[in-house]
Amino acid sequence: MKKRGYATITFERPPVIGAHAGIVGPKEGEGPLGKYFDQIYEDPMMGEKTWEQAESALQRKAVSAVLDKGGLCAGNVDYFFAGDLLGQSIASSFGLEGFCRPVFGLYGACATIGEALILSAICTASDMAQTAMAVTSSHFASAERQFRFPLEYGSQRPLSATWTVTGSGAFLVASGKAAGGNLPAASHARITAVTPGQIVDMGVRDSMNMGACMAPAACHTIETHFRETGTGPDDFDAIITGDLGYVGQDILIGLMQKKGFDLKQKHMDCGIEIFDRSTQDTHSGGSGCGCSAAVLSAFILPKLETGQWKRVLFVPTGALLSPVSFNEGKGVPGIAHGIKLEAPGA
Amino acid sequence: MKKRGYATITFERPPVIGAHAGIVGPKEGEGPLGKYFDQIYEDPMMGEKTWEQAESALQRKAVSAVLDKGGLCAGNVDYFFAGDLLGQSIASSFGLEGFCRPVFGLYGACATIGEALILSAICTASDMAQTAMAVTSSHFASAERQFRFPLEYGSQRPLSATWTVTGSGAFLVASGKAAGGNLPAASHARITAVTPGQIVDMGVRDSMNMGACMAPAACHTIETHFRETGTGPDDFDAIITGDLGYVGQDILIGLMQKKGFDLKQKHMDCGIEIFDRSTQDTHSGGSGCGCSAAVLSAFILPKLETGQWKRVLFVPTGALLSPVSFNEGKGVPGIAHGIKLEAPGA
Repeated sequence: MKKRGYATITFERPPVIGAHAGIVGPKEGEGPLGKYFDQIYEDPMMGEKTWEQAESALQRKAVSAVLDKGGLCAGNVDYFFAGDLLGQSIASSFGLEGFCRPVFGLYGACATIGEALILSAICTASDMAQTAMAVTSSHFASAERQFRFPLEYGSQRPLSATWTVTGSGAFLVASGKAAGGNLPAASHARITAVTPGQIVDMGVRDSMNMGACMAPAACHTIETHFRETGTGPDDFDAIITGDLGYVGQDILIGLMQKKGFDLKQKHMDCGIEIFDRSTQDTHSGGSGCGCSAAVLSAFILPKLETGQWKRVLFVPTGALLSPVSFNEGKGVPGIAHGIKLEAPGA
Repeated sequence: MKKRGYATITFERPPVIGAHAGIVGPKEGEGPLGKYFDQIYEDPMMGEKTWEQAESALQRKAVSAVLDKGGLCAGNVDYFFAGDLLGQSIASSFGLEGFCRPVFGLYGACATIGEALILSAICTASDMAQTAMAVTSSHFASAERQFRFPLEYGSQRPLSATWTVTGSGAFLVASGKAAGGNLPAASHARITAVTPGQIVDMGVRDSMNMGACMAPAACHTIETHFRETGTGPDDFDAIITGDLGYVGQDILIGLMQKKGFDLKQKHMDCGIEIFDRSTQDTHSGGSGCGCSAAVLSAFILPKLETGQWKRVLFVPTGALLSPVSFNEGKGVPGIAHGIKLEAPGA
């Protein structure tokens, strides 16, 4: 149900996240969340010839893990919603072609898993699909090649920079009633509302400070969700952004304060959680389409599934940055998508 | 309604395309469809400083034209579904940020308008949205910079190459009952079924022959649609692909023949229609996200709206090509999305 003029959809029959997997590379495996991931690959090349192909392999492995967990084959997935950071989304195209199912390619920078989950939820909540697979990935080295300096330069990174996560998260979203395979709906987190975000451009031009670029978009989406659903920070166990990092977190909390909402006790950021700032040299935190996706699967959903948390607002954040637009002097607009996740049958 | 295991959704309450616009650059304006476009811009820079910003301006103009025609403001559009060919979809991000509405960024190469229309139709048919704007663009010069040689080289193009269309098409999709503004549902074409496509990789490695890369995907989607809906070429006034061009058309007709379907009398290709092969030096035809989108608005929908055609299968086609994957020796997979369009109230 969506009220006229609202961005938020509140689902009358909330779809569930039936099975999911978060898989990562070696650095993420050594981080504070290491023990929670489904798979940790010691070889960042994943046995492939290029970093881009390694990223495709991450998506393939994540989807395969979800299918295994759900006791499903690819033919049980109605539609794939997938994306990554690379130009023309090649990690997704080459990662998913072998599953031979319809694919909707998405691009929303590091907020792409939000787009994928929202569209999967819309399709399954409305019975336009029975199952949809939301999957995104990122890879430190393919992202550096795409956006920044050749790694061989050994360029120094400013403290506001984030470290692109090598990882992927995949989620089988299913209509509440029948998910097929061995997916009993009663034990799975539910997507009860979604607030798709708009592009927010505050004119920030520092591609090495993406937290600052994205914080205004996160603020806009969170405020919109609160306003349209009549809720506030107290209604959630946590408000979880994607990859604002330490710099962006400070900005978000300040911006929300001005809007009259105190996020300080409730805010969590996937990019902050995934690395240990003091030992891993990742500066402001982790980032990338794979960051919030892998953390959602490994860390957030289990807390809902076990009832430790009742309700969270998951807000993946994206910096709409390209080397071309940036070199042509354009700013870095942000986007953030809001997804309200609730414990099973809560 | 979607049968289990099918790709195709048949809408019980088909959404309508309430208002639409196709706008192009000077070369497209001089082509055979010149008189049908809403706006033709003589300056391919659109008064902007870069080609990429010019492409953003095309999207902005197309959306504004649709809003004007529909007597709507941006606030009447629930969600935007948008994409383009450029890395990180910058033409869309910078083109749409000013409308301040939720945006789902899409990437499906030149088939992106198919993705956008399908998702707009799903959202409005299910009342998850009342209105959705599907918009895509391409620009000859921004695409050459993204994918091929610097224009200044004056490189020779093989005869199998296509010419990227400078243009944009935008479509306001609305639920059948109430579109708002001055949009009487009775005079608008309806989206009665959709068949999202899967990635088809036949190992074609020639980025200068995208027709050959995409034809197998078009064949797969058209055959799937026929099989799942129990229809064939005789049930349609035309089967219209996006930008296979002359080379891809021959391949598609041959492939479909082997599947038992004779497309020869019914096939049309937007890339073939938009340029005059003999005078415009465009070789195999036009291509780009803007090609099928602008032709759909200017040439196809009017034939349905006036009842000249009763029913068409619109199948935008995309080559999932990136300079990175291509230079790393990967092939060029194709994707095609099928949309069944019918005359008002037919």
